[in-house]
Amino acid sequence: MADLIVGRIVAVEEHPGARAPSYLLRLDLGPRGERHASVERGSYDAAELEGAQVVVDIGSDEALVVAARSHAAGLVLLRPDREVEDGTVVG
Amino acid sequence: MADLIVGRIVAVEEHPGARAPSYLLRLDLGPRGERHASVERGSYDAAELEGAQVVVDIGSDEALVVAARSHAAGLVLLRPDREVEDGTVVG
Repeated sequence: MADLIVGRIVAVEEHPGARAPSYLLRLDLGPRGERHASVERGSYDAAELEGAQVVVDIGSDEALVVAARSHAAGLVLLRPDREVEDGTVVG
Repeated sequence: MADLIVGRIVAVEEHPGARAPSYLLRLDLGPRGERHASVERGSYDAAELEGAQVVVDIGSDEALVVAARSHAAGLVLLRPDREVEDGTVVG
């Protein structure tokens, strides 16, 4: 079951063990602490991701970055279009 | 159960029947056609919403715009940070 909140990417590393070219992200979830999540690299530079707010599903053991899966553009992140508190609930 | 896709706001009207100040949106969901959805006005001007891509839950009878619910900023929309096809699946 999806349990969506806004998290902020605070660190980005290459994730060499993943099947597709991926980053390992450290996410600040505000009052819910920090979690790691792997995300496909898509067309994103690491520098572009650092500090960005994204949507995270914390409904399972592994935190998942929720993104659009475009045929043309590949993985495309979803971002709140105004700044919100890290950990803000999405619904 | 959430079933999330990207939709584009193609028309915005005041929604006088709603409990909170709201807009009635017409959403283009690409191959899934068009749906209407009501959304709280938050801090958005109608003009700012027209043409914007947002995240829509089509998992129930009524289409719902999925947004962050910030204590400080109120309703904050989520947008793909690159242009994607209307109707693109979110997951």
